[in-house]
Amino acid sequence: MINVLFAAGRHRWKQYERPLRRAFSCAGIRAELSPDLEPHIAEYVIYAPTKETPDFRCFTRAKAVLSLWAGVEDILENRTLTQPLTRMVDRGLTEGMVEWVVGHVLRHHLGMDADIANPDHVWRFDPPPPLARDRQVAVLGLGELGGACAHSLSALNFSVAGWSRRPKRIDGVTCLHGPAGLKSTLARAEILVLLLPLTSATRNLLDAGTLSLLPAGAIVLNPGRGQLIDDDALLSALDAGQIAHATLDVFREEPLPKSHPFWAHSRVTITPHIASETRPETAGDLIAENIRRCEAGEPMLHLVDRTAGY
Amino acid sequence: MINVLFAAGRHRWKQYERPLRRAFSCAGIRAELSPDLEPHIAEYVIYAPTKETPDFRCFTRAKAVLSLWAGVEDILENRTLTQPLTRMVDRGLTEGMVEWVVGHVLRHHLGMDADIANPDHVWRFDPPPPLARDRQVAVLGLGELGGACAHSLSALNFSVAGWSRRPKRIDGVTCLHGPAGLKSTLARAEILVLLLPLTSATRNLLDAGTLSLLPAGAIVLNPGRGQLIDDDALLSALDAGQIAHATLDVFREEPLPKSHPFWAHSRVTITPHIASETRPETAGDLIAENIRRCEAGEPMLHLVDRTAGY
Repeated sequence: MINVLFAAGRHRWKQYERPLRRAFSCAGIRAELSPDLEPHIAEYVIYAPTKETPDFRCFTRAKAVLSLWAGVEDILENRTLTQPLTRMVDRGLTEGMVEWVVGHVLRHHLGMDADIANPDHVWRFDPPPPLARDRQVAVLGLGELGGACAHSLSALNFSVAGWSRRPKRIDGVTCLHGPAGLKSTLARAEILVLLLPLTSATRNLLDAGTLSLLPAGAIVLNPGRGQLIDDDALLSALDAGQIAHATLDVFREEPLPKSHPFWAHSRVTITPHIASETRPETAGDLIAENIRRCEAGEPMLHLVDRTAGY
Repeated sequence: MINVLFAAGRHRWKQYERPLRRAFSCAGIRAELSPDLEPHIAEYVIYAPTKETPDFRCFTRAKAVLSLWAGVEDILENRTLTQPLTRMVDRGLTEGMVEWVVGHVLRHHLGMDADIANPDHVWRFDPPPPLARDRQVAVLGLGELGGACAHSLSALNFSVAGWSRRPKRIDGVTCLHGPAGLKSTLARAEILVLLLPLTSATRNLLDAGTLSLLPAGAIVLNPGRGQLIDDDALLSALDAGQIAHATLDVFREEPLPKSHPFWAHSRVTITPHIASETRPETAGDLIAENIRRCEAGEPMLHLVDRTAGY
């Protein structure tokens, strides 16, 4: 019997208990799985932030902490956490992200909003939108999520550039990296998608300086992390017309406070953090696979590199 | 020199002259191309409906009539047309259609409208939308356009069924045909896409009877032909809630008259016939290729089967 502590909050236990038990069973793992195990007997800790910040030093026998979240910047701030830490890379989360990103890129590409709200019943005689092959989209961040989005956009013929810290290769995508690569990626981005991890190097990456590098009238999509954007700089760029529209799924504070100027801005669309939901059914499979690997002495998947911050 | 008459209207001549000349040049065709050739010397007639209905019997030497339109039902009504007739199957048109269909399927799948217009600034705590793999989409019509759309939706993981008159095979798509196939296709269509050609068999295909076979709260997308839908039956189904939303790109009369109840209906979105625009640059290539084939004694592409009506 392997002792697995579920330390991701009571509300998540309701969603995760059944999928985790099913995944353990499929993987042949005999586990004592519970949210109530004594910390010092836990061999694995399934974790997501809750109201109380835990002291990971209590988990004296823990071989690994398995995060239910893809972004671990909040977790890494806890200096008591010294055990190996894995990130969630959930097939369901990736699929949901691709659907949100491709959907909102197509929405802006096609200019749907003018048809969805058309109070004056105007039959527009404008020329049709350009084809996707003539529309330049850029994805910042080419990890599991950004890479999958860049790939799907390219499959729909969009002209896609991607930028990441380290060099990457994705079929059909112009992959750039480094500071010079960032400048040229931004300079051609009619539609910009932010899917970078949040690190000290990416915090406020989209500020007055980088916003000014985008082509005039660019669209910003942020399904990544709220802190990637300097909110005031984005609002100024929207007011100046440098940015034609921003569609945002993540914010510095969530739910987005009623008083935040994003709510009232006519060229901001807010989606309530729906792009990157971990799905318990598919997430359970990764947790089980990582426990199986660790027990078998194999390297775990998606182990966090603490120096890089993800 | 091959005499090619451009009989698709003066306004289209402006858009098409240069792309056609370029395509002829690339294909090595030496042509006398003009909108002003005498009918009896024309060897090929490039055609799209204009205000005046021509008498095709004047084109005594014409080897083929080459339509700039994908749908030829209006053209076939002209009984003076006895020459071989080819349909337009334009790469640009297909790509534009796929972008419109995938974009609007994702819009409805993600429930975007509630975020785009959110006057009360509500942060919705609803569960996230299902994944595309759990969303059933049906495409009626699996020709060039419908087949490409079904394929792209399947590549985004949607659970796709397709229906056509004749049996078809498309990877990743459940292909059905015949009357029983239509019933089971409709019965599972949470989102229904109409891409059938307009024939006597498909006119008013979506009427009170077929609408009632859809799951309650289904979405209807029509980028195909306006006459595929019985407008009054659709309005009744919208009012009854059987259909949650209709997004329509084509209508019996275009521009859609100001008095048509679709304009004022809160659950109808109208796009102004933008899904299926032939693009002169890519269309010119097919016209040139068909002239080359006909001159070389090879079968022309996309020759219309007059019995089937497309």
